[in-house]
Order: sequence, then structure tokens, then C-alpha cells
Amino acid sequence: MDLRESLIAARAAARRLAGLTGPERSRLLADLAEALARPEARKAVLDANAQDMASAREEEAAGRLGSSLVKRLLLDDKKLDTSIDGIKQLADMPELVGRTLTHRALDHGLILKRVSCPLGVLGVVFEARPDALVQITSLAWKSGNAVALKGGREASASNRALCAVAHQVLSAHGIDTNAMVLLEERAEVDALLGMDDLVELMIARGSSSFIQHVRSHTRIPVMAHADGICHMYLHAAADPAMAARLVVDAKCSYPSACNAVETLLWDPEASVALDSCVSALSAQGVELRGCKETRKRHPQMNAATGADWDTEYGALILSIRQVAGLEQALAHIAHHGSRHTDVIVTQDPVAATRFLAEVDAACVFHNASNRFSDGYRFGLGAEVGISTDKLHARGPVGVEGLLTYRWLLYGHGQATTDYGPGGRHYIHKDLPVDG
Amino acid sequence: MDLRESLIAARAAARRLAGLTGPERSRLLADLAEALARPEARKAVLDANAQDMASAREEEAAGRLGSSLVKRLLLDDKKLDTSIDGIKQLADMPELVGRTLTHRALDHGLILKRVSCPLGVLGVVFEARPDALVQITSLAWKSGNAVALKGGREASASNRALCAVAHQVLSAHGIDTNAMVLLEERAEVDALLGMDDLVELMIARGSSSFIQHVRSHTRIPVMAHADGICHMYLHAAADPAMAARLVVDAKCSYPSACNAVETLLWDPEASVALDSCVSALSAQGVELRGCKETRKRHPQMNAATGADWDTEYGALILSIRQVAGLEQALAHIAHHGSRHTDVIVTQDPVAATRFLAEVDAACVFHNASNRFSDGYRFGLGAEVGISTDKLHARGPVGVEGLLTYRWLLYGHGQATTDYGPGGRHYIHKDLPVDG
Repeated sequence: MDLRESLIAARAAARRLAGLTGPERSRLLADLAEALARPEARKAVLDANAQDMASAREEEAAGRLGSSLVKRLLLDDKKLDTSIDGIKQLADMPELVGRTLTHRALDHGLILKRVSCPLGVLGVVFEARPDALVQITSLAWKSGNAVALKGGREASASNRALCAVAHQVLSAHGIDTNAMVLLEERAEVDALLGMDDLVELMIARGSSSFIQHVRSHTRIPVMAHADGICHMYLHAAADPAMAARLVVDAKCSYPSACNAVETLLWDPEASVALDSCVSALSAQGVELRGCKETRKRHPQMNAATGADWDTEYGALILSIRQVAGLEQALAHIAHHGSRHTDVIVTQDPVAATRFLAEVDAACVFHNASNRFSDGYRFGLGAEVGISTDKLHARGPVGVEGLLTYRWLLYGHGQATTDYGPGGRHYIHKDLPVDG
Repeated sequence: MDLRESLIAARAAARRLAGLTGPERSRLLADLAEALARPEARKAVLDANAQDMASAREEEAAGRLGSSLVKRLLLDDKKLDTSIDGIKQLADMPELVGRTLTHRALDHGLILKRVSCPLGVLGVVFEARPDALVQITSLAWKSGNAVALKGGREASASNRALCAVAHQVLSAHGIDTNAMVLLEERAEVDALLGMDDLVELMIARGSSSFIQHVRSHTRIPVMAHADGICHMYLHAAADPAMAARLVVDAKCSYPSACNAVETLLWDPEASVALDSCVSALSAQGVELRGCKETRKRHPQMNAATGADWDTEYGALILSIRQVAGLEQALAHIAHHGSRHTDVIVTQDPVAATRFLAEVDAACVFHNASNRFSDGYRFGLGAEVGISTDKLHARGPVGVEGLLTYRWLLYGHGQATTDYGPGGRHYIHKDLPVDG
């Protein structure tokens, strides 16, 4: 079967997934969680991942792969358990397909409903992180969509093993396994980008150059999970101990994540908070790169260049810049940020309110780590990515971001010419919707 | 001021519009309605339109302009009053900027809010219909967005006159008139398409070839108001009198509208309903083009060719095709429809339920005219267009389609590493949101 035929079959399978009842959909997800938890499946998946890891470590030793990629590639019992938990949570979440989002009487006997429905077939290109495959698949199923997936080549054995388990579950439910098409070659991605008659949405995760490539080679709408150049701003009224805790969490808990902080901004009056951050970060082995004013206070620090303000390190490196106050912090973030997640640390509610009102980013936080920017932590069950676009879905994208809606109108023969001066009037009365 | 400078100023003006309170925003809209209703403004606008109409009628006589375009171009007292009413309705609608859409305690003292906000600067290219300028502008203001507009060249005098009134209202509110930039040249549209750093959304209304041009010449997301190849399907259990009423409304009340019906499908068992449609449409002077089976019953009818099933006539022409039943009607619509608005006429609730569940279109109606597919009739206040895309906004796009949202998190120093096995647990408790 060639790719186009597979995608045509995926489209038919999508209609089948869309037509599942809520309980059927939950059962499908619960069965996937159970299947992955079985010892033989777990062994097959972890063995495949060990194989991927061995190749990746060789490439790392040869300097052809970065260590942050190798870390993301690893799938161990703990990561797999987290993935299985995520599927179970999704299975237990309320059904989101077929919900009435708007319910309105246009007139007596002329009832309008806006009802959520799946998109159809999703194309997803993601990085070398096998747990992403599990998240994406379970979100696609929960939203009633079929999916064509292409992961990083470093994870190909892991992805094949995970896909085999998912295909067994689909088959057991009588659903064509083309509901989940695993692409193996980069050339297949290019072919997929041309299938705008079959694919409703491309989800692209990766470097911003890769995402630009995707955007300029397809007419399919693209949802991008791109760079996170995230900021933490130490306002004059920042609490020093809190600042240190937050910046260590935001930088060190998972440096290769897109929601890790890359640049610390500080007010001149926040110098004590800065000092406390610098010593906590240094204790964690973080390389710090400071602007001129920062280095006046911490002369041992490396010097930042202009490029540092536009860099997502994905590693234990942090750039630090002094700003003259809130206004300049906002200007720096507007100029250098990637509209992902920016944080203000302050005890001053007025400054916090202004920061939260004015930063044009998907996520804007007060006194909390940037790393809370995550579908699981937000209570979305899981996420297919974090969108830095403004359209459709913004920030962590869960099930709702994979749905669209249709307007249904139930009449009794009404014509539009019945309405207007001298005729009937619209009443536009809102009726109860699904909670 | 060149276009780029105007757009930079528009971006600043957008921040000002975004920062208006609800009552300030309503006042701005109410003042626009009042300003357009004043006799001197009305005269200026209608005089300008008369000038556009005179040129257009010359071009029509020379065969360079179609009559449906000339009809759309006309702005008379009635159309202007409808526009003014639309603005007043928008002014009175609840404020939609700054609404809390999600409100969730991730933990005690860690509160997540998803809050609606404007997009920024919208680019809008629309056809030669001056009342569209009023609708788009008022929707942009209601949603807190600045706008760069380019209308059809045939309407340039009308658009300039309308824009002058709107600029006076902005100035009276102390808002830079660059909040509304009127483009005059086609070359400016091409320049605008390159400004993906300044424009958040392109709204493109026009032919599908024009929309393809826009999509392939910009990295700005595009919301398209394109072809409407809308269907009405006479199911075996269609009521003949109702069918005739509905098809006449759907075809004749405004044939150049995108929500007008283009193809009538009929079951063999619906032949009486077909006959009743044919005689009602013929009485209205509609040219009918039938398939072979249709012409067996109505031999006087012109023959449809394959191209007819894919044509938006925008005129008093209707194609008619017999289908073998619901299944084949669904297949015809899936193949030839433009995912706009499709209608089933039937007294059979089972057939209606299946049609409404399975047609993949923005709007799917039972026993109601296709022409109800409209933002004003749906109670959205007005519409910026009818989107046949699935992402972001689908069908009639009102204020909500011009908004995005931001995730705001209010913490007290929480780190993500505080959570997990042995640590704190997320509670994910939903809290009340704005009605």
C-alpha cells in the first residue's frame, strides 16, 4: 500500500473513530494503557529503545548527536509509566467529541447548535522522543482523529514497537490500523505535505528552521511546536529566595524542554534576588552569560553576546541581562521572546498585573516556574505540543485543540425571507449547553 | 507614511484598542453608528457610492463587469440602515475581550486562567461590497483589533467615504487613525502579505483562485471566505410545498451570496417535491440545468455538464441531479461541496440525523434554507466572513473568531519539582468562568 492509499484508508478510519460513542472511545484508550503495561509489550518497547539508545550513544560519541537529544530519546520504565498514566487520565476525561458548544433558538422552532467534532486526519512530525508518540496517539484517539506520524529517525525502533502495540489495540476494536500510519522516511513527510486534500492539520514539532520548511511546503494548516525562548523577570520587588527556587526549577529540571527558561532579566533594585539566583544556578553547574551590567556585579561570569538573547540553549546555560524596569523588560520580551512562556517574580501586585496584561505570549505567569507550561500540568490530560501561534489553539494543546465544530440548524421549513421588516423577528435566545 | 510605518502604527493602535474597557468599546461602536446615521455623513457616503455605481454601470455595459458584482456594490439607504443596525447590535453585545474561558486551581494557591484577548492587527481583503467594510471594521473594534483593509477597486470612493467617517470617530476617542488603514492599490496587498511580523491574521474574501494566491504568497495565517457550493437534498420523505419554499429562498433571495444554493439533489421517491421545486423556480426565472434522469422527467430543462457540479453560479442558475438515496447524496456532497452549507429536506428524522451527523461542512441544516448561514442570523452580531476552513473558526465568523487567548498562572513561588511522587499533587479543580 503506498502512502496515498494509506491516507485514504486513514480518512475512512477517521470517520469510524469519529463515530465511536464516549464509552467506546474511553475503552479504546484504556485498552491501549493496559496493552502497554503488559510485561511482554513493555519488554518489546524497552528493548527497541535500548537498540535506539545504543546507536544514538555511538553517534553522540562521534559528535554527531547532541546529549540533549540522547536524553529525550531514552524511554525507561518511569517514562513509560508516566505515559501509561497519561493515557488512563485521558480515558477517564469527559468526552469532548459531539459536545454542544452553542445552543440558540433563532426563533421558535428554529434551533441552532454548534457541535464539536474531530478534524479528520492529522499529520504529525515530531522529534526523537518516543513518549511523544504515545501522547500524540492517545490525544488523536480521544479527539476522534486518525493520525499519520513521523518521529525522529533516532527513535525509529522505539516508534515501531509502540506502534505495533497500538495497532493491536485498534484491530481488537475492529478499527483499521490505518487509523495510525507510521511514516519511516523523510521523503514520506514531503509527500504528506502535498496531500492537502486528505490531511486537515499538520502538527510540526522541532527547530524553527524545520517548521519554516514545513510552512513553506504545504497548503495544509500548520500547528507549530517551535522554539521556546522563555524569560524570567526579577522585578524590583522580587523575593530573593523564591527567585532562586523558581529559576533553578525553570532552568535545571529539564533543560532541553521548550518551556525551560533561557534568559533572566533583572531590575537594578533586584540585585539581591539576582545574587541569590546566581549562586543557586552556579551550584547546579549552570553556565551563566551576563550583560555588561550583570558582569559588573558578577565579574566571573562569561560575557553574553547579542546572539544569546535569541538563543534557545536546550542545555544548562542561561543568559542574564539587566533591564531598567518593567517597561524595558516588556520591550526585551516583545523583541526577543518567542511568545511561549514568560514569568514575572515580584511581591508587587501592580507590577504583576501589568506584566500579565501586556506580555503577548501563550503563557504568562506570576511567581511560578515557566515549566508549569504543559498540558498535563494544566489539566488538559496531555498535550500534542505547545503552540506559539495565536490562531486555533495557543499554548499547551490538548484534546480541544484537535477538534473543530459544525453549525447544525433544525428547522420546520423556514425561509430567510420570512424574517425582516413586516415579517418574523429573530429571538436569538441562548439555551443550555453541555457543561 | 509608507505602508510598513502605517502597520507599525496600527500595531501600537491595536494595543490601545485592546486596552479599552467594555463600556469604552461599546461607546466607540455606538459613536460609529451615530456618525454614519448623521445626514451629512450619509449623503457623503451615498454620493460616493453613486459615483462608484456610475463607473460600474459603464463597465457592466461594456461587458467588463458582471451584474452580480454591480448589485453587491450598491449601497442605498436600506443597506446603510442595516449596517448601522448591525453596529448598534455589536455595541450592545456583551464584552468578549478579557473573558475568563478556563479557570482552574492546579493546586491550592496556584490558579490558572485562560483569558480571551485580541489578535493584534488583521489584514482583510474583500470584494466590492462597501457594507462589508462597515461590518469588518465594527467587528475589528468589538474584538479590540486594528485592521488594514483593501476592498474591491470598484468600491474605492464608497470605501474612502466610509473610512473617513470611521477615522473621525477614532480621533474623537483619542485613538490613532492607523487603527484602520485603508489600502488603495493591489501592490499594497502584496506588500501586506509579506509583513508576517506585523499582521496576525489575513482574512481573504473572494474567488477561490484569489484565495489560493493569498495562501501561497504569505506566511500569515489565512482565514478564507471562499466559494460556496451549497447543496439542498430532497430526501424521499421531503414535503413538496416546503421543498419549493426552501429552494426558492435559497436560490433567489440573494443569488450572488456565497450561501445561495447551487445544486439540488433529489431521490427518485422525491419526484413530486422535485416537480414542485421546478415549477416554483421556473416561475422565478431561474435557469435549471438537469442531469439525464432529471431531464427524463423535465425534458424542457437544459442539460448539466460535469462542470456544473463544481460551479458557484452566483446567479439565477441551479443544477439538479438525481441521486439513488442518502448514501449517494452524501457522496456527491463530499466530492463536489465546498464544505460551506448543505441542507436536507425531509420529514424523516432518522435520515435527517444521519445527514446532520455525516456531512463534513461548516453548516448542515434540516428543513431550513441554506441562506440562514450568516453571522447576523446566527446571532453573532455580524460576520467578517464565512470560513470553509476547519481550523480556528468555522462557518460564519463573528467577534469570537477574531480573538485568541492567553494562559495566565498566578502562583506563590511554586516549582514543578514540588509535584510528583512523594511531593504535592495537582488537584485540577475547575472554578467558575465568565458566563
